[in-house]
Formats: sequence, C-alpha cells, structure tokens
Amino acid sequence: MSVDRRAVLAGGAAVAGLALAGPAGLTSASAAAPMATTQAPGFYRYKVGDFQITAIHDGFAGRPLEGFIRNAKLEDVQKAMGAAGLSTERLPLTFTSLVINTGAKLIVIDTGNGNSGAPTSGRWMENFKAAGFSPDQIDTILISHFHGDHINGLRLKDGAAQFPNVEIKVPEPEWAFWMDDARMNAASDALKGGFQGARRVFKDMPNVSRFQWGKEVAPGITAIQTDGHTPGHTSFMISSGGAQFIALGDVTNMPSLFVRHPGWHAVFDMNGEIAERSRRKMLDMAASEKAQVAFYHAPFPATGHIVRDGSGYDFAPALWSSAA
Amino acid sequence: MSVDRRAVLAGGAAVAGLALAGPAGLTSASAAAPMATTQAPGFYRYKVGDFQITAIHDGFAGRPLEGFIRNAKLEDVQKAMGAAGLSTERLPLTFTSLVINTGAKLIVIDTGNGNSGAPTSGRWMENFKAAGFSPDQIDTILISHFHGDHINGLRLKDGAAQFPNVEIKVPEPEWAFWMDDARMNAASDALKGGFQGARRVFKDMPNVSRFQWGKEVAPGITAIQTDGHTPGHTSFMISSGGAQFIALGDVTNMPSLFVRHPGWHAVFDMNGEIAERSRRKMLDMAASEKAQVAFYHAPFPATGHIVRDGSGYDFAPALWSSAA
Repeated sequence: MSVDRRAVLAGGAAVAGLALAGPAGLTSASAAAPMATTQAPGFYRYKVGDFQITAIHDGFAGRPLEGFIRNAKLEDVQKAMGAAGLSTERLPLTFTSLVINTGAKLIVIDTGNGNSGAPTSGRWMENFKAAGFSPDQIDTILISHFHGDHINGLRLKDGAAQFPNVEIKVPEPEWAFWMDDARMNAASDALKGGFQGARRVFKDMPNVSRFQWGKEVAPGITAIQTDGHTPGHTSFMISSGGAQFIALGDVTNMPSLFVRHPGWHAVFDMNGEIAERSRRKMLDMAASEKAQVAFYHAPFPATGHIVRDGSGYDFAPALWSSAA
Repeated sequence: MSVDRRAVLAGGAAVAGLALAGPAGLTSASAAAPMATTQAPGFYRYKVGDFQITAIHDGFAGRPLEGFIRNAKLEDVQKAMGAAGLSTERLPLTFTSLVINTGAKLIVIDTGNGNSGAPTSGRWMENFKAAGFSPDQIDTILISHFHGDHINGLRLKDGAAQFPNVEIKVPEPEWAFWMDDARMNAASDALKGGFQGARRVFKDMPNVSRFQWGKEVAPGITAIQTDGHTPGHTSFMISSGGAQFIALGDVTNMPSLFVRHPGWHAVFDMNGEIAERSRRKMLDMAASEKAQVAFYHAPFPATGHIVRDGSGYDFAPALWSSAA
C-alpha cells in the first residue's frame, strides 16, 4: 500500500468548519533571524567502566562514491548507500579521534589531519580545547597507523611539532614498513607519498617510541594486530571496571558500507585480503563480546556496537546522551 | 567461526623480538586531568532546501523497559533493544524540538518539559540560547500535541509564560479534546492529569490560536493529521526549494522499537489502533518520498530517513556534519 501525499495533506478536511480562535495584536519577531554558520563544538563524552572517553571530531573530506570500493560495482555501492538513507553520489569521510581519561592518565588515540587535509578538516585542536583539555595534560598519544589523516596533527605544515613534550607511541610493524628506505625507493609513485609523509611527521621527533602487538601500551589499553589497511595498522582494546571497548581505527571505513559488507575493499586498504581478514575477526569479536566500539571514520560521535543481522553484521550507533 | 579473544590479543607474538626504540627523559603530564561533567551544547543544525533547521535537545528521562509496550512481550522488546545495541533493562526517553529558520521567519515546533519534567530534562532554553537564538526572535511556535513534554516549556511551574509575545499555534482537534470540561469530568484519574496539564499551560494565554489539519500554518509548513497518540496529534510537512521534510512528533517513540515494529503500541498512545494507522501511513509516505524526517523521541539529533528493509522499515540516522 502506498499512501498518496495529497490525500494525507487533505486529511484535515474532515474537521473543516470548526471555529478557529485567534489572538489579536501580537507583534511577532520584528526581524528575520540570520542563518547560523556554526555547529556546537565537535566533542562528545561517554563512559567505559571507570574511564571517560571523549570523541574529538577533526571534520570531514568529501569524495565521490565512484572508485571508493575496489571489488564492488558502483551500482551495488549506491544501493548500500541508499539503504542507509545516504547520498548515492558523494560520501563524507569523517575523522574522529579519542581522548581517554583513565582517572590517572590522559591518553589520545590519533590526532587528525592537522593543517594538511581538506579545508573542512583540521578541527582537532579547536575541538580538543573546546572539550576543556589542553595539550600539556596529555600523557600519551597512541597512533593506529601512519596515514596522514591520523598523524598529520602531530606536526603542522610549517614543521612545528604539536606535542613535543608528550610520549608518542606507534606500532613497531608500521614504523618498520614506512621507515624502510629500500621499500620507499622501490615504491610506486602513488605509494611514495605515504613514505614521505611518515618521514615528514616523525623525522627528528625524539619523543616517539614503538610498541608491539599484544602488549599493554597504556594502563588498561592493549594493542591489537589489525593489519591490512596498512602493514602495521593497530586497534586498541580498552578495559575498565569490567567494561570492554575497542578503538577499531580503520578496520572499517564508513560502517554502513563495510560493516554491512565486510568483504568490500576500500581503495585505502593497502592489502584488501588481509584487511578483510582483520575486519571479519574484529567484527566477530566485538559482536560476541558485546564490546562498545569506535571507528575513526564512523559518523560522529563514531561509537556504538556491532550487532549480528542474519548472517552478517550491522553497526548500531550509541544513543547520544546529555549526561557526560 | 568465533574468534578467541586471547588469540587476538596474543597476535603480536609473531613480531616479538624486534628491538624497541624508546625516548628518554620525557616529563609527561604531571597531574591527572579531572573527569569532565558536561557535554557540548545540545543543538545541531541541518539544511532542508533553503531552510535551516536547528534541533534543540531538552534532555531525557529514563524509564524501565517493562510496561513500555502494551501489545508485546517484554522478552520481544528486550530482543529488539539488544538488536539495536541498547540496554535490555532501561530506556532513555529523549526530547528534541525543532527551530526552523525560513530566512524570513523563525518557527519553533514544541518546547520541551520546561521545569516540570525529570531532572535530566528541561535544557531547552539553555540549548536554544547556546545555539545563538533568543526568545524574542521567534515568530511562531507550533505545537504537535498537548503532552507535558511538548508544552510545559510554554509555562514554568511558577506560572510564568515563557513566550508572551510569540504567536502560538495549536491543533484545533487537540484543543477541542483537552479543553472539553465534560470529557475531563468523565476521565479516569490517570487521564485527568492530561486535562489539568493542558489547562495549566494554556489558561489565560491570549497569544494562542488554533489551526486545522491540511492547512499551511507557517510559510512552507503544513499541518498533517497523525492522531492516535493523542486525539489531535499533528505532524508538520515542511517544503523548501524542492526538499521535503516531515516533523513527525510522536508518530513513533524510539525508532529502533517502533519503526522496526510499527504494530507495537507504546503505553503513551491514547488510541493504539489509530496511532498505528497514522504511523504506518507516515512511514510509508516518508520512505516513498525519501523525505528527511525528525522524531521528537529519536536519539539526538533526532533526524534521518525512513528506509525500507524487507517488508518493513528502518530509521537511518542522518550523518552528523560539522558543516552548519
């Protein structure tokens, strides 16, 4: 049954004829209100056990849908976007980093685009400060992988290091790959930018150390191997007061595409097969353990749960709450 | 296949033995950062054609899941909540009102709990001001129906009218029902509060007029009959620049329950059968026309699209964007 819109709009005819009471002499607002140009600051807080997590939004970069997924037809991708109520032409890639307050330590995971990304990105520091934080409160910055939208916030374009006094911890396998001169020299032109970008950020940065997968990298935070997106891509398992949380990084890009279709390979995945294996492993774990998750590229505030849906999965965004 | 969490955490063993570089002498943050107690202000802007809509959050009231749905077993309701990644015990009823800037007029739809609701509600005025608005900018307030969480913001507990100079427009059938003394006198004790509440708010309020279904009640805004939740419950169809938007009010309460299960009757629906008919009519129309919608009780920012899912529907939240 399809409802005719004119019939719906005309539904009131049944009550036509009733007398209407009306006020007289009201001087309503005298001038048109200006259109606003800003949103509320891009931060959002939630609890995981005794920890308080603050999602910090870095903005977005728009891109065409075409060419985004390597192993799916455009029409299938458009269908998936339509099924999620989204545009079938363009897609906003959003960037949301995490600040974790353990009560004793303030830990940051990934730092956004700095001033090297799209003009609609680079809001990390502004939103971090709007959330009441200052950089000198940070104890540790954890990095999931070396793509520019995750590390360029560490160093501005003019060369200024943004966190010279903060301990910065990066995945050893990621460091080993991108800092390998032989690999860089043999790389395609397209890939060379990634090697150069990692060097630009980390060169002569003395406050960087490397961690291994499977190790605790901060109190209650363990690094998990989720490679494929990059050779050293890392997720972080966070445990507090019996609650489990997984900062999944780029295990999926936009969940309405890749949680629904874990077999799809985003153009940014360096090794699609390995990335898919990591993705399936983590989706299964998150669903089985009912762990809350965050994706770097999920719609802000970029947190929720992985639920099973038939033989597949869906991403159920957490309910926004005004309680911090 | 279920993934063993210990195996995942131990995945890094493969790279054990690599040398780790570590910085020395860093003096990380010296003091624990305090846990924050506030969220960003509860407003969110989006465009519908040439109109700018601002969702204004009034907060929430928690309630047990038990007794919430009249015609479903608790275990089925819990299953639906679990499928949406939500608590199977309690549910937050959230309140989100709308401000519509047409460029010429500033229109408000519903006004929240005022200071008559749960302590976690009543944030409307604070968030309205945080969004940069002032009450004297409002041209018209439209009311969807007379439940307290929609009208108590019009008058505080001490009797103070909050918008004495603003044109307030209410549905004629809603007025006719709740202002009928004979109906009030015959009402059950449970229902009597609704009659008294409507009188408390609207008594001696000269700036109120009544509108009929099917009529344009503000520029580009048409009142639509969606009764059942209350006898005069009204939705608003908003048209601008070729874009369609429907402020659905309480056509559903929490969408993850009632969009997925349009046949479920919330305890607040005065006539469950009629409410269901209105719900099915509007879900079909929103899905067919791909109109953006807002529900008063959807998770903030409470807007998105109705998409078809098999023989039913799903609510696809709009993507949060930092672009106002």
